This record gives sequence, C-alpha cells and structure tokens, in this order.
Amino acid sequence: MLNETHDPALRSWVVGAQAPDTDFPIQNLPFGVARRRGDDAEPRVGVPIGDQMLDVVAALDAGFVGDRDTDAAVAAEACRGRTLNDLMALGARHWSALRLALSRLLREGSAAAAALDADPVLRRRLLVPLAEVEPMLPASVGDYTDFYASVHHATNVGALFRPDNPLLPNYKWIPIGYHGRASSLVPSGTPVQRPSGQTKKPDAAAPSVGPSRLLDYELEMGFFVGTGNAQGTAIPIAEAESHIFGLCLVNDWSARDLQAWEYQPLGPFLAKSFLTTLSPWVVTLEALAPFRVPAYERPAGDPAPLPYLEQAGDGGIAATLEVWLRTARMRAADAPAVRLSRGSFADMYWTIGQMLAHHASNGCNMRPGDLLASGTVSGASPEARGCLLEITRRGADPIQLPDGESRTFLEDGDEVTLRGWCERAGARRIGFGDCAGTVVG
Amino acid sequence: MLNETHDPALRSWVVGAQAPDTDFPIQNLPFGVARRRGDDAEPRVGVPIGDQMLDVVAALDAGFVGDRDTDAAVAAEACRGRTLNDLMALGARHWSALRLALSRLLREGSAAAAALDADPVLRRRLLVPLAEVEPMLPASVGDYTDFYASVHHATNVGALFRPDNPLLPNYKWIPIGYHGRASSLVPSGTPVQRPSGQTKKPDAAAPSVGPSRLLDYELEMGFFVGTGNAQGTAIPIAEAESHIFGLCLVNDWSARDLQAWEYQPLGPFLAKSFLTTLSPWVVTLEALAPFRVPAYERPAGDPAPLPYLEQAGDGGIAATLEVWLRTARMRAADAPAVRLSRGSFADMYWTIGQMLAHHASNGCNMRPGDLLASGTVSGASPEARGCLLEITRRGADPIQLPDGESRTFLEDGDEVTLRGWCERAGARRIGFGDCAGTVVG
Repeated sequence: MLNETHDPALRSWVVGAQAPDTDFPIQNLPFGVARRRGDDAEPRVGVPIGDQMLDVVAALDAGFVGDRDTDAAVAAEACRGRTLNDLMALGARHWSALRLALSRLLREGSAAAAALDADPVLRRRLLVPLAEVEPMLPASVGDYTDFYASVHHATNVGALFRPDNPLLPNYKWIPIGYHGRASSLVPSGTPVQRPSGQTKKPDAAAPSVGPSRLLDYELEMGFFVGTGNAQGTAIPIAEAESHIFGLCLVNDWSARDLQAWEYQPLGPFLAKSFLTTLSPWVVTLEALAPFRVPAYERPAGDPAPLPYLEQAGDGGIAATLEVWLRTARMRAADAPAVRLSRGSFADMYWTIGQMLAHHASNGCNMRPGDLLASGTVSGASPEARGCLLEITRRGADPIQLPDGESRTFLEDGDEVTLRGWCERAGARRIGFGDCAGTVVG
Repeated sequence: MLNETHDPALRSWVVGAQAPDTDFPIQNLPFGVARRRGDDAEPRVGVPIGDQMLDVVAALDAGFVGDRDTDAAVAAEACRGRTLNDLMALGARHWSALRLALSRLLREGSAAAAALDADPVLRRRLLVPLAEVEPMLPASVGDYTDFYASVHHATNVGALFRPDNPLLPNYKWIPIGYHGRASSLVPSGTPVQRPSGQTKKPDAAAPSVGPSRLLDYELEMGFFVGTGNAQGTAIPIAEAESHIFGLCLVNDWSARDLQAWEYQPLGPFLAKSFLTTLSPWVVTLEALAPFRVPAYERPAGDPAPLPYLEQAGDGGIAATLEVWLRTARMRAADAPAVRLSRGSFADMYWTIGQMLAHHASNGCNMRPGDLLASGTVSGASPEARGCLLEITRRGADPIQLPDGESRTFLEDGDEVTLRGWCERAGARRIGFGDCAGTVVG
C-alpha cells in the first residue's frame, strides 16, 4: 500500500519540513481547517507542512493541483467549504489523488517551488505560518461516538467502579461504545470550563451541586468517517478501512464525580458532554500506511472475534501517544511541562476497522464527517495509563510533580497536551500535532 | 399565556379544519417540512390545517404574512430553507408572531380567504392536500438525546433487567438521559428494517449474530430546542421553556436482545441506533398552552427537585398518547388496527423544562434543532405501558390480538402507529399527527 508519497528520501522546499522533530514532513500531509489570526478571514482547508500551512484552494486556483476534472482537482474543489466534509464524501481514490498532487507540489524542485520563489505575493497566498493560523474543527460532525477499546483501561476503570466485576462478560465480544455529544467538540486550544453538576458522596443522604472536583482528561485517538453507508445496510469488515478518512487526537475530558453518580443505567452523559478537544489535523490512513502493525494479540483463552469483526491484514497502528501537564505554577516559573504517560495505539483490543464495522452492523448509517473515538488509550504498564483516574487510582495515589506540587485530578490553570507520532526504521517520522486545553474555573 | 389563537370559537375557511377529530384545527398550527409527492419538488416548510398543508413561504410571497421586517415576516423568511432550524433559532417572539399571522390568514373571513377563492392557481400554490405530501424530518438535528423520564417505565424495565435493584438511587435526583444517534432519525412512514446484531442467551457459552428476535417500539414524546446556549453556560430552569420550540411524537424502536447483551457499562447503543421515527409536525409550546397541568406529583417520601431543577408553574402537558398495532394479517383481512396502550404525558416524573435545564447544567451547548426525547411514556396502570417489554413482561405474557394472533415482540409486517392529542373542556382538541412505521425483515 506504500507509494511514492511515503519515500523517506522525499524533501520539501518548505524548509521547516526538514526539521527532524516536525510532525509535518512531506510524508504526512494531513488535512484540517484553519483561518488566519487577527482578521475576519474565512476558514480555509489547509495542509500543514513543517511550520507552514498550505492553503489547498489557493494552490488549486494557482494551477498547482492539476487539470480540471482530474481526481486531484475535483478533491481540491471539494475543499472550498469551511469543512472537510465534502472532501471526505468523495472517497479514498480522491483523497489519495489530492495527497499525491500536494506531495508533488511541495517537493524540492517542483514547478510550484520555482513559481513561488519568483512571486512572494502568491507564495504568501498559498503558505501561511502555522503560528499565524487559528485551527478550527476539521469537519461538521453529525454524530460523535466514543468507544472503550482498550482492555487495560476497561479493566483498570472497571476495578474502581465495580471491584467485584471489573471486566464485563461482553467486553471481549463487542467493541463497546456509546454516543457522545457532537456539539461539545472543540479544536485544540479552546479553554476547558470546569463543569458543574450533581455529585453524591457515598455516605451523604442527598447529592449536592457544584463544580466538579474530580476533573480528568482521557487520552484518545479519533477517526473520521469519510464515505458513509445507507441506513439499513452494514459496512463489511473487509471494507471498513476504505470508509475511514483519517485520525486525530481526542481529549475526552471527564468529570469523574458527576460520572460516578449519573452513569447507571444509561451510561456517561453530563460527565463528558461539557467539552471534548480535537487536534486540528486529520492524518490520513494513507499517511499511516508505513506504521500499520498486527492487531493486538489476544491472550490465550480470549475468544476470537466473531466473523463480522474478523479483520485480515494489519489492523493496528503503531502510534506513540503521550500526555503532558503544565500547571499554572510551572508556567509562572517558566518551567517546562511534565510527561504523565506514554502508551501506544497498537495496544487497543479493538481496531478502528472493527469499531466502524460493529457500529454499522445493525444498519446504523454513517455520514461523512462522523467522528468515532477509541476510548482511553492505556497499555499494560503503569506508565501507559491514559487518564488520571487510572494513574492515581481515583485519587488514592497522588502524582508528585517536579516543582513540589501534587495532583489527584486537574486543578484550574492546568494545561493538558496530548501528543502522538509514528516512527520506525526506514520511514519518516510523522505526527498528529498537539491537542491542548487549559482548565478554567 | 393564552391569546387569540387559542379561542375555541375560531374557525378556518379550510373546511377540513372543522372536522371534530382533526389533529389540525386552526388552534394548532404546528410546523413541519414536506414535499409534494410524485415529482422532484423541493422540501417546503408547511403548516397542516385540517386535511391541507399551508406552504408558509408561498403565503409570505403572496403577501399574506405581513409587512417586511415585521416579526412574522422575518420568521416566514426563515422558512425558505429545507428545515425549521433557521426559524427555531429566531426565538419565541418570532415563533409566536408567525403563528398569529397564520392564524389570522386561515380564519374564516380573512382577506386571504377571499383572494384565494378568486384565484385557484394561487390557492393551489398555498394549499396542498396532506394526502399529497411526503413529510420529511422537520429539522436538521445536530444532537439527539433520549431521556428516561417516566418513573413507571424505569421501574417496570428495571425490574426485568435488575430484579433486585429496579430503580437506581440516582433516579429521583437526576433526569437520566443518554445521547442517541442523530443520523438514525427518520420521518413517519419510513420502513423499519429489522436490525441484526449480537445476542447472548443466558446459558450460551458465546453470543450469536442474527436478526433481532425481540424488536420493540417505545412510545415517546420529543421536543426540539429552538434557541440554544453558549458552551460553558447553563440554561436556568425558569428560562428553559423559552428555549423549546415544540413537541412531536417519537418511536424509539429498540432491539431488546441486542440491548440486554451490549448495554453495560456504557448504555444502549446498537439496540437503538438503527432507526428512530418522528411524527412530522412540531406542535409549538404556545399551541399547547391550554393543556398545561402541574408537574407529576411526587409521592410522599420522594425528594424535592434540587434548586436548579425546581420549576415554577405548570410544568406538565396533558397529552393523551396511544399505541396502535396493525399486523400483516390484519391488513390482508382489511381489519382495523388495535390499540395496545393509552397513557398520558402528564405522568412523567420529569418535565421537559427539567430535562433541558439538566442537560445544559454542565455547560453543554444546545443548538437550534437539537432533539430531546422523553423516554418511554408509561403510566401507573397496566393499560398505560408504552412498550412491549413492559406489556408482555419481556415476552412472558403474550398479547392476544382479536384475530387470534398473539405477540410478545414485533413481527415482520407489523405496523406500529403512535397517536397523541390534547383535549379539555373550553379548548379545541389538537393533535400531533401519526408517527408510524412498518417492520420489514
């Protein structure tokens, strides 16, 4: 499935794309929507390259994407709106054609490079520094679904909420998920207002209402539906990945005290629906092709997936995922953020293909731009726990921070940043860009 | 809160609006979206009146809604789209002004009546027989939330799923709800494809996959958000109803066998997301003003609502709700449908204002066109049970039908029709129109 866009020797004429630690070398080319800061600029579909963003429609209008009616040009035309939805709806052939055209445009020695060198005004129309853009949501999300696909997370959390019954009998048969709140999705950088709600102490006669005291993050991976399915039809597992446009990072902020009191019998609701943060750039499945790995190896004794969930090939994605915390005191002291965890998306019990195939198996219709998230990504080791609930065992084991502070859950002023990237020998490292939010009281 | 539009003496020049059993007398004037059958007609915002539908924009363009820039005309202008969302976003003052203008237009002796009598072509542009229109969804629903607001339903169902623990401790404190699947909403009349999925018999070692054998309906009331709230802000209970545009009937079709196996710990998912049916006409809160009643009287010993849920005035709505079943065999024998239940929306433990105020209490942002549904409407009496799960006690007590058939759950070919209306002395009866669907295998 690798093609010329994956060649690790490719170099872009955008200098910042050569930085070894950039998330956005020419081998990545994720898609997003952003507008230039400081004016009333319209949102534009953009592709980050190094420290710049390429304006896709500006590149099309400058004649750099290819002839009219080619797949690449049709795909770029679909970027004229304020979202990626129209591009997502076109399907994998068009996504790939546009990515290839942009890869050729951005390579050292391209005709575009020469033309832009000679025309600084045009260059400024096509390229804008990432530092000068405000990212928006990449798509208008019709429905947002959150899964629970890490068996380590499910076991750790289950042990806290149901000590006698941590992992329920359905877990290894069903990619468990629930519907989330689409209106609550926000782009990276949006402040996170601490929610209020009902909580009840075990020994209290009645619940009380007030700001959540157990505010948590959840490190997740999200993936966008590209092409959908008609209501009443399923998406076969063999075709599931062809419906997926790409992936981004998701912070499913969670009020654990609200959650504990409200979640039975119908699941999480206000504990999650106040706000969910997305990283702005959607990394395509094509860009992730060099980093595919076998799906999580189920331990002996676990059931095999039922036939409608049996996926051939490498269902996993070897992405390293980290959580970083910077408190208000650290910012005041100009101290750097500290890493709270590091895990791998390859450790998920269910693959993204299985989640999507399961979701549509009852005939539920998916639409372009629908977002599915993985649930908290936790691994087997203590260092790979993707939320404070697990790390601190619901507050029993506080985290000691280097500056002497401690945390059980998040305090006002805490900034949480999720990071993710893929790297391996023989391939260029690519990343997802930051997914950040600061808690405000 | 009553005004001239509620006068029971008002009569429309549309003859069908005088029929005593019509759901759509001039005192109702609900809003919806429909297109004329049989051609590629565009969806139009319409108001049913008797057996006809008034085309709101055609009435505006004919000069019958009032001068430009009046609230009524601005509201009618907002109906040019294919949905009610823009109208919903305007707020209660505009909704009321448009309803008043339409009431005056449709009254006996109006200038419009004379003009249309003299101009059959114009009349045909403004009025189309309901039998000739195909209803669509009234709004583009950004998020759909389903509550669980009947304590009778919660108790009956809880007893089946958790015999030792039917009503959970949070029930009387929290209007329990969960996010539903917006993409699955369909208008009345859409066939209901029986979903497939995983089920597991208690004594089976493994789940199996196949068509649901325990397909059920749920009789619910839905209500649309009109004006929303900014993320991070709440909707105070005193203002909640001013954010509600109106109500419709909802059939939350449910696959009980899928539900039982999947629902823990995150709630219902594929058991519900295959399809949910809405009645097409949204009855405004203003039209329902004559039928407001005190909220459900909590039994002695139940807690009072917490302050953020304490609602002044008459929070209840006295709407009678019925479920009718017509099997394939009944249709073949030309036999009429049979009624399965009759209940009242006044029996809900939580009011629509409480549901909305709770939903936004954590800062969750509501958007115009969001749909909230009540959960199954069941009453204290056996005749008022709003789903087969309750009526047949999960199949233990089959229903005997007049033609000798019996039912535990729905069979292919079964048509389920929800009906609802309000009536009382001194007011004109108004109704919601049918919410119907036929199961196909």
